Amino acid sequence: MNLHPVDERIIIKPIEEEAERKIGSIIIPDTAKEKPQIGEVIAIGDDVIKTNETRKKLSELVKVGDRIIYAKYGGSEIKIDNEEYMLISRNDILAVFK
Amino acid sequence: MNLHPVDERIIIKPIEEEAERKIGSIIIPDTAKEKPQIGEVIAIGDDVIKTNETRKKLSELVKVGDRIIYAKYGGSEIKIDNEEYMLISRNDILAVFK
Amino acid sequence: MNLHPVDERIIIKPIEEEAERKIGSIIIPDTAKEKPQIGEVIAIGDDVIKTNETRKKLSELVKVGDRIIYAKYGGSEIKIDNEEYMLISRNDILAVFK
Amino acid sequence: MNLHPVDERIIIKPIEEEAERKIGSIIIPDTAKEKPQIGEVIAIGDDVIKTNETRKKLSELVKVGDRIIYAKYGGSEIKIDNEEYMLISRNDILAVFK
Amino acid sequence: MNLHPVDERIIIKPIEEEAERKIGSIIIPDTAKEKPQIGEVIAIGDDVIKTNETRKKLSELVKVGDRIIYAKYGGSEIKIDNEEYMLISRNDILAVFK
Amino acid sequence: MNLHPVDERIIIKPIEEEAERKIGSIIIPDTAKEKPQIGEVIAIGDDVIKTNETRKKLSELVKVGDRIIYAKYGGSEIKIDNEEYMLISRNDILAVFK
Amino acid sequence: MNLHPVDERIIIKPIEEEAERKIGSIIIPDTAKEKPQIGEVIAIGDDVIKTNETRKKLSELVKVGDRIIYAKYGGSEIKIDNEEYMLISRNDILAVFK
Repeated sequence: MNLHPVDERIIIKPIEEEAERKIGSIIIPDTAKEKPQIGEVIAIGDDVIKTNETRKKLSELVKVGDRIIYAKYGGSEIKIDNEEYMLISRNDILAVFK
Repeated sequence: MNLHPVDERIIIKPIEEEAERKIGSIIIPDTAKEKPQIGEVIAIGDDVIKTNETRKKLSELVKVGDRIIYAKYGGSEIKIDNEEYMLISRNDILAVFK
Repeated sequence: MNLHPVDERIIIKPIEEEAERKIGSIIIPDTAKEKPQIGEVIAIGDDVIKTNETRKKLSELVKVGDRIIYAKYGGSEIKIDNEEYMLISRNDILAVFK
Repeated sequence: MNLHPVDERIIIKPIEEEAERKIGSIIIPDTAKEKPQIGEVIAIGDDVIKTNETRKKLSELVKVGDRIIYAKYGGSEIKIDNEEYMLISRNDILAVFK
Repeated sequence: MNLHPVDERIIIKPIEEEAERKIGSIIIPDTAKEKPQIGEVIAIGDDVIKTNETRKKLSELVKVGDRIIYAKYGGSEIKIDNEEYMLISRNDILAVFK
Repeated sequence: MNLHPVDERIIIKPIEEEAERKIGSIIIPDTAKEKPQIGEVIAIGDDVIKTNETRKKLSELVKVGDRIIYAKYGGSEIKIDNEEYMLISRNDILAVFK
Repeated sequence: MNLHPVDERIIIKPIEEEAERKIGSIIIPDTAKEKPQIGEVIAIGDDVIKTNETRKKLSELVKVGDRIIYAKYGGSEIKIDNEEYMLISRNDILAVFK
């Protein structure tokens, strides 16, 4: 992809089809109040290291191809070849499938 | 579980049944305004050490299998094998059963 | 008590009976706008030392059995053996009876 | 007084009588929008020194018996021997009579 | 004046008369949305030096007798000998007449 | 351009025409809730290095002529020779086309 | 001018006439939602250096006589010799004409 996220942002392809929203045995319900969602990581921005804390670098946290759960609010939608992608900030990445 | 929480988040299985909500002699009332809830810890994210304070690491605070009280607001619901789990931030973990 | 508060939180037993709300000569009025309340300390969380300020450690501030005045908003209610307790953050502890 | 304020709080006895609200030649008007008020310092909490600034310690700022002007919002009312006192944070102490 | 402002506050005497509001050739309009006002400095609080920035000390910024422009919101009114004064925080001092 | 953005701001020329909003295969939809937009970088402000984190300098992030995606809210519109430009803060630059 | 802005503030003379609002080829539209405006710098406050970042000093950023674009909200109006001036904070200076 020729689009590079700025700072600790990633681009993901949301998995919106009911079928696809079941990853292994995990289903993301449609009824959740603060709807977390599943997406596949397409592009990863830059590590930003804060000298006063030791959290993982973005590049250690996710790799291209990983599937993640993200909080819906906060992301920005873009379309590539008529498919929908999202720009997600690190703080909205809730969990990573291993 | 094949799902790893990001940073200082944990995954818990909420104990919602009236019977189960009594742990030993502790009952969580349904009528509490800011409803704290009980959950069992299923997965634990990563320690984030801030160099300007000395609070416990997440990994020292809870172990898988611990039962905790958490503040309801703030968590995100997910479903695994049709059971409901929640992603909880460290700051919403109020107390741990010993 | 088999419940350990996280970080700088304490568990207190509120003193709600009119009679009990008079401690020595101090009465907490029902009519106060931001109602401070009296409680007895039941369990104490962990000291969190911030390196850029010198305030007292939580363990220096209160002992189990102390009676405190706390700001009502902010605490979370739980029930143990049908009696009501509250989880209170350090910042909501206003004063300690000596 | 057997009540010790936590951190940089003080306990003051408000001077509410019209007559008493005149201290020397200073009168606090009832009509002020953000009503500052006069009180006499009854008890003083603990010094909290922040290493990145040099402001006065609370114990240097006020002594028991001092009269202060405080911003009304923010304090918490308590009653001792049927007289009203207030718990005031350092940031709500606006000025001290010398 | 026997009243000492706390931290970086000053006491000013507002110049409210239309005539007086013209200082040299400067007029403060009544119609300004966020109305800045002119006052004469009566008393000055204490310097608070923050170690991570180099802004002027309060005592370097204003002297008793200086005339200043201040932002109206934020100050607290008091009356001395039936004249109105205001307690102003350093951050609400916009400019100083030289 | 004879206009220099202050601090970590840039000036961009928005690409508003439907045709132009397709860059390679990427289309920015009109229906996105928090509408990200594409612009071409016209002028770049100054690097601001924060000593407690290691994020890229503004000058490393974008060059004049780059095309970026930015969050719509936050920017300020100006007109040069009857064409519309925008002043964008670094934090509103979401991604850069490579 | 006998008026010295406090900290990182400047005094500018707004250019409000339609004719004057065109500087070279740049026109500031009346219809912009968050209306940026052009002004000429009349007086400059004091440099405030923060030790944890390296942004330009105010005195490096603007000189008396420079023309700037500023965000409208936030400034405070004053009148000198019946002409309108504004007190502007550094953070509301968006760009400088070179």
